[in-house]
Amino acid sequence: MTTKIDITLSETKKEKPNVDQLEFGRVFTDHMFVMDYSATKGWYDPRIVPYGPISLSPSTMAFHYGQTVFEGLKAYRTKDDKVLLFRPNKNIERLNLSNDRLCIPQIDEELVIEALKQLVSIDKEWIPTAEGTSLYIRPFIIPTEYYLGVAPSKHYRFMIILSPVGSYYKEGIHPVKIFVENEYVRAVAGGTGTAKTGGNYASSLKAQDEAEKRGYSQVLWLDGLEKKYVEEVGSMNVFFKINGEVVTPALNGSILEGVTRNSIIHLLKHWGVPVSERRLSMEDLYKAYKEGQLEEAFGTGTAAVISPIGELFYNEERMVINNGETGDISMKLYDTLTGIQTGALEDIFNWVVNVNE
Amino acid sequence: MTTKIDITLSETKKEKPNVDQLEFGRVFTDHMFVMDYSATKGWYDPRIVPYGPISLSPSTMAFHYGQTVFEGLKAYRTKDDKVLLFRPNKNIERLNLSNDRLCIPQIDEELVIEALKQLVSIDKEWIPTAEGTSLYIRPFIIPTEYYLGVAPSKHYRFMIILSPVGSYYKEGIHPVKIFVENEYVRAVAGGTGTAKTGGNYASSLKAQDEAEKRGYSQVLWLDGLEKKYVEEVGSMNVFFKINGEVVTPALNGSILEGVTRNSIIHLLKHWGVPVSERRLSMEDLYKAYKEGQLEEAFGTGTAAVISPIGELFYNEERMVINNGETGDISMKLYDTLTGIQTGALEDIFNWVVNVNE
Repeated sequence: MTTKIDITLSETKKEKPNVDQLEFGRVFTDHMFVMDYSATKGWYDPRIVPYGPISLSPSTMAFHYGQTVFEGLKAYRTKDDKVLLFRPNKNIERLNLSNDRLCIPQIDEELVIEALKQLVSIDKEWIPTAEGTSLYIRPFIIPTEYYLGVAPSKHYRFMIILSPVGSYYKEGIHPVKIFVENEYVRAVAGGTGTAKTGGNYASSLKAQDEAEKRGYSQVLWLDGLEKKYVEEVGSMNVFFKINGEVVTPALNGSILEGVTRNSIIHLLKHWGVPVSERRLSMEDLYKAYKEGQLEEAFGTGTAAVISPIGELFYNEERMVINNGETGDISMKLYDTLTGIQTGALEDIFNWVVNVNE
Repeated sequence: MTTKIDITLSETKKEKPNVDQLEFGRVFTDHMFVMDYSATKGWYDPRIVPYGPISLSPSTMAFHYGQTVFEGLKAYRTKDDKVLLFRPNKNIERLNLSNDRLCIPQIDEELVIEALKQLVSIDKEWIPTAEGTSLYIRPFIIPTEYYLGVAPSKHYRFMIILSPVGSYYKEGIHPVKIFVENEYVRAVAGGTGTAKTGGNYASSLKAQDEAEKRGYSQVLWLDGLEKKYVEEVGSMNVFFKINGEVVTPALNGSILEGVTRNSIIHLLKHWGVPVSERRLSMEDLYKAYKEGQLEEAFGTGTAAVISPIGELFYNEERMVINNGETGDISMKLYDTLTGIQTGALEDIFNWVVNVNE
């Protein structure tokens, strides 16, 4: 590490929220990490500064052409006061993959990991310790050139902000109802589906909104070409247990490579549970359901870790999975992953990073 | 009109740029229009204020999930000092179509047209008058809620900014070379291709960048499903003259409905030139080329009006169109449209709006 991160500590400390009332992504800590880019200087001036607003011209490219990328990961505080990150290198590697797709210059992954550790360490008191709580970490990059031409920006700002978050499952893990989407499309090969960029999320809002109006929590996305093959659920990867085998859609150029997805495949293999990444049609899934072989279904992502699916609404039919209850594999995966993440279980794969080591 | 637009004039006037050195979208006028939205108040506080930076929290949704929309149109100053807009209602109607796709609340079209007129009128001295120059108008909406959840924002800001622009064709109208894109995809039915939203432009940057490295100005986008059918060129609609007939891809759910595109179809029909909106395969286009029937090709959009295509690079072959020169129909359309827009020709379709009437 040769680049020094400049640190300016906040003179005042904000009041910390009541952990019982914490929502996702509404409250932010005392500091943030900032680094700028210009075509002549490269990435420069990495710094930790008091959390606060940024001032931008209305012509800033960030407001016009969607050339943005982001990541999401979590820090946990253990009973013995250690602060742990879960596989942060995977997120920062993926940020550079997103950068490549969006024509944003590559960041120095080692520097950013160091920035992450220092920032989380400084705002350590903000990490809640109650069951299921954590500190959500949001690295993101926006284009900051003042220009209305359609071209990659020549200036960028990279920021990391931190938000203490309450338990995703305040009343315990529970399955959700999902609407199988047959009109809107999330992504297609050759598009930006494998990148974590704003446009993918913007395009999903309408389908999500319509599903909610029908009483469903999220949509199950099918492929954009034939609307036949399962891709993702909401903004999560998706898994199914079919006749003893756990199946997830193969990375085909339009599916995001989730860190939780990857970790689950590792865990299942370690346990000797058959697991397969392959193309899975909605028709085959329905057939398995009718034959009583669709045993479990769940989404996976940083926010929920595991989100069991109790019902799929498909072709005007309610497919109830595992009696609408959380399945055994779903529960075991949730307990094991959160156990490793919070330091309660042994870190058998060396996934956890202590911010002070 | 019942809603009053509050006006605060700038105390100082910025120096106006030299018209010969004007680039696209780099210099902005003295004022801007701003209006805010909250779920409880609806759109409120429409105001014209001095042009200046806006201050936003790093957690502002605009930086994360791409829920943005925009429009682009131009104002022209005539020899007798009138200020003309070209079909502004079409742009503002389309802004509301984009809003619908992106889950952004509808704006009051009448109020926004009035805001456009007042703002352009106040900054009228900024409109250059030299041949081919104009004032570019950029209405846009960003989500302003401070929240990291993936959901439609509950707060928005609508802004209109103005930028004097030089001639698109400083050395006269001239054809460009286009690369037929066979890897990246711009949009697909069920996606956001018909909306003017940031993500469509972000996803196009990589293809554009790779085309430029090969010596081409833009890419010709094919459909996202089969990569067979012609859709758009760069960020413009596209037209071909084949054996006397002018053909443009039909609006199929992934193509933006351009105001220039619509105007051209009107003009051609008025002139009695056969014009057809239909699905057009690259294969058929190539066949017409080999048979000597591909007579002209051109892109259409607000910035260039008409951008003649002199060459298509397809399947490792250079398809040279009309000897790489601007065709007669392309030239006549350019002269007629810019003539109507600048008030030099009779406004036969009642397209032009005088901002002071």
